[in-house]
Amino acid sequence: MERYFTYTEKSPLLKRTLDLMAKVKDIESASSMLSWDQETYMPPGAVEARSHQITALEVIQHQFMTSTEAHDIAEKISTRIPNGDPNETSMFRLFMRRYNRDVKLPQSFIEDFSNAKTVAIESWKHARKESRFYHFEKDLGRLLELKIQEAEYLGYSDNRYDALLDQYEPGMTVAKLQPMFDHLKTKTLELFKKVDIYKDKVTDGFMKQKFHSEGQIKFVKIISEKMAFDLYYGRMDESVHPFTVAFSPKDVRITTRVNDKDIRTCIYASIHELGHGLYEQGIDYSLYRTFANDGASFGMHESQSLLWENMITRSREFFVWSLPILQSIYPGMLSDIYPTDIYKAVNVVRPSFIRLEADELTYNLHIILRFEIENMLLNGQLKVKEIPDYWNVKMREFLGIYPPNDTMGALQDIHWSHGGFGYFPTYTLGKMYGAMIWETMHKEISNLGELISKGNLSPLRHWLGEKIHRYGSLLTPQELIKNITGSELNEQPFLNYIETKLKDIYFN
Amino acid sequence: MERYFTYTEKSPLLKRTLDLMAKVKDIESASSMLSWDQETYMPPGAVEARSHQITALEVIQHQFMTSTEAHDIAEKISTRIPNGDPNETSMFRLFMRRYNRDVKLPQSFIEDFSNAKTVAIESWKHARKESRFYHFEKDLGRLLELKIQEAEYLGYSDNRYDALLDQYEPGMTVAKLQPMFDHLKTKTLELFKKVDIYKDKVTDGFMKQKFHSEGQIKFVKIISEKMAFDLYYGRMDESVHPFTVAFSPKDVRITTRVNDKDIRTCIYASIHELGHGLYEQGIDYSLYRTFANDGASFGMHESQSLLWENMITRSREFFVWSLPILQSIYPGMLSDIYPTDIYKAVNVVRPSFIRLEADELTYNLHIILRFEIENMLLNGQLKVKEIPDYWNVKMREFLGIYPPNDTMGALQDIHWSHGGFGYFPTYTLGKMYGAMIWETMHKEISNLGELISKGNLSPLRHWLGEKIHRYGSLLTPQELIKNITGSELNEQPFLNYIETKLKDIYFN
Repeated sequence: MERYFTYTEKSPLLKRTLDLMAKVKDIESASSMLSWDQETYMPPGAVEARSHQITALEVIQHQFMTSTEAHDIAEKISTRIPNGDPNETSMFRLFMRRYNRDVKLPQSFIEDFSNAKTVAIESWKHARKESRFYHFEKDLGRLLELKIQEAEYLGYSDNRYDALLDQYEPGMTVAKLQPMFDHLKTKTLELFKKVDIYKDKVTDGFMKQKFHSEGQIKFVKIISEKMAFDLYYGRMDESVHPFTVAFSPKDVRITTRVNDKDIRTCIYASIHELGHGLYEQGIDYSLYRTFANDGASFGMHESQSLLWENMITRSREFFVWSLPILQSIYPGMLSDIYPTDIYKAVNVVRPSFIRLEADELTYNLHIILRFEIENMLLNGQLKVKEIPDYWNVKMREFLGIYPPNDTMGALQDIHWSHGGFGYFPTYTLGKMYGAMIWETMHKEISNLGELISKGNLSPLRHWLGEKIHRYGSLLTPQELIKNITGSELNEQPFLNYIETKLKDIYFN
Repeated sequence: MERYFTYTEKSPLLKRTLDLMAKVKDIESASSMLSWDQETYMPPGAVEARSHQITALEVIQHQFMTSTEAHDIAEKISTRIPNGDPNETSMFRLFMRRYNRDVKLPQSFIEDFSNAKTVAIESWKHARKESRFYHFEKDLGRLLELKIQEAEYLGYSDNRYDALLDQYEPGMTVAKLQPMFDHLKTKTLELFKKVDIYKDKVTDGFMKQKFHSEGQIKFVKIISEKMAFDLYYGRMDESVHPFTVAFSPKDVRITTRVNDKDIRTCIYASIHELGHGLYEQGIDYSLYRTFANDGASFGMHESQSLLWENMITRSREFFVWSLPILQSIYPGMLSDIYPTDIYKAVNVVRPSFIRLEADELTYNLHIILRFEIENMLLNGQLKVKEIPDYWNVKMREFLGIYPPNDTMGALQDIHWSHGGFGYFPTYTLGKMYGAMIWETMHKEISNLGELISKGNLSPLRHWLGEKIHRYGSLLTPQELIKNITGSELNEQPFLNYIETKLKDIYFN
């Protein structure tokens, strides 16, 4: 890989900044490694020790970022005369962003939060097993308390929730998010009602045959090769909750899961994570061990997984290429099926209790529900114990279905057990970024559909790499989306995209 | 598991000591985790980043142990009035042992050594591939230089090599080792000549049939269950070089390897590592996150693997129980074989170029060769580039075989590429400890042979757990072997053991 990003001059201050970043990133990578192991291969009895180890590494990162060296660097950055080098400017911006956060948090908070998280994850698992939100209530309450404390430490000008949102999506606020989400909600509910009328137009029973698991993995490996995910610098494993983690652009790991009741699970979980994985592998190696070795934001990261999962591989063209492969892996099982049939089946719109099983249209309603709950929790407008009822009522309002128990409702996601308030909105932001980028790809890659229909996916990866991946977080998400599309983040391209697709499938 | 070890009083000094130990151990465990991953699942392209991460964690441990807090604790320990509590005394001894080592080494040395190691591992791999020691020479020379520097930093009274030996086997010196090794060498060469006369008495061709790998793993899993290795608190994986690592008594991981040319490889590599694994799982949990959460010494650790690998499972009794299992896993492949046949086949004595494939008798000659070379290197009596010739000449002198190339000779072991001078002798020390303990087990467990012949192995594990494992490194190896056997470490029990076995197999 080429080294794109250099500096006009490596001043002593820049050198010190990069040295400290390298120290922090090495520890951060070690910590991520421990988390990866916890989700994949760690023996069940090792939870307590692992939590000690991860907390230790988090505390050390915090100590580095609040050391006298860090203070001195921060002061010099704040009072320097900028030399106009954009890479240096970005690096200093990224340093100050993390420094400003870390100095506001006392070490005791880092430890308290890390410990509260360990406890809450266990009680969430227990509550899920019993399907009783009640068992999770106390520990979730403690996490909420700590997150409120964190928001107060960090500060905000308008809404307390902004302090948390900003950590996942730099610059994002409730004031910016609310109107976009409101518009999305209104339009989604309209479209959803319309689909309901034509719902018999799509059948997808043939996706629920008993497809053997070796075949699922084989199919996914073929796709990953076409996407040019590099296994010399990465891995694919299985885990209960698929995820992606990177310890450097040369060590990127994704996980997937096989489902012998529905082949769509494995295909799209894998492609989703591969999309994240390509982003991480595509970050320019000159950014390794700097704070720019990261996605521009969680929303932007999500856009990369969703582009692959939804726009590219839930297209009719994709099945022109891939259906024959599936048919050869599973002789006789899909012999009467045409690309159009499977294209429709992977795009079926149907209300679901579970976010992860939701279709492209109703998915955003799941996110908006969580966003509303989090915003209310953070601002004292909803109590933790009221979550399940609120959740269930809103599910009926949005989707016309009422969760039969808490596991199918408010206990389904792992995020809150990690204290991850502010994370959920990035999924829908990812859809919005993704649709904007997809629109631009269509303009700039003239034979896009043809490429996909031949399984020739590497030009797409290349385009995304050039436009997005290589920069890591050197550019802000605002700069990035403006550079690519010429526009500010907005929900209209997604609404256009989904309406076109639904017309094609349901209203034609 | 019960918590055996408590203290008369948890003084503020003891509390501070334990707190610092916990911090160091968490980082040490994280670092071990990264090494485990490197040997099992890490993508090949990730070497550079992994080396950065491990170095970072090593530096942090060193910083903790040389912090003002560590200095202050060390000073208070040195000037305290002992309260007679043996556990407190041990804990302070262990703290001082590590402190005294770490303060003598500058941080630059830790970094230099860590970097030199990364480079040397790669050039060792390259040299092995080309089978040219020459490619490894320069980097091995650099490691030797650093190890000499380390010995000088640490200090020694007699032989420079003692400073390195002591790190693996506390209290061990060349002066103590040499006479035992000399005696072992003389007797081994005598026995080896005698075996040569009767070598046709044993046939082992039937162990080299094509045993499918699932069966090998299945057989080993059955043994591991009988040995009571706990998979709730551990794992078994495959790797090129089998090893054991523990991140706490509740997370102990062994690896093994399958060999479809000889079933003995997998069986005994697994049992060897399981022996190490049982030691780690058996350390009392009250010692978790202290410096006593470790083996008493590398030699003592090795004794536990060798007891299981050689004494217990290379016995005739073991095959009374296990041969029928093997026969049922591989129908028809071992139908004419009796327990005595397989007992002989797994004990066949035959000169081998490769240490790891050596039998119980000639194995020690491989170790003595390495010990002699290391001792000469450290004391300037042999140059790095002279190693291959010296090695080959000695192999002919000891075993009558001359390595055809460097990969079969001086490049075969990974140890030197890690700078692990002083490690090899612990293998033979393990045999000596092991035979002493085996003698005592025979006295104290009256129905030992009967238990083994029924596959009832857990009483053996229990005995070892009570006598050895639970203590971790709370007792020194000298205290431990004296407590168990009433004697000081010596080579005679091993010589008795091996002579008896060879009589049974070859000279009867």
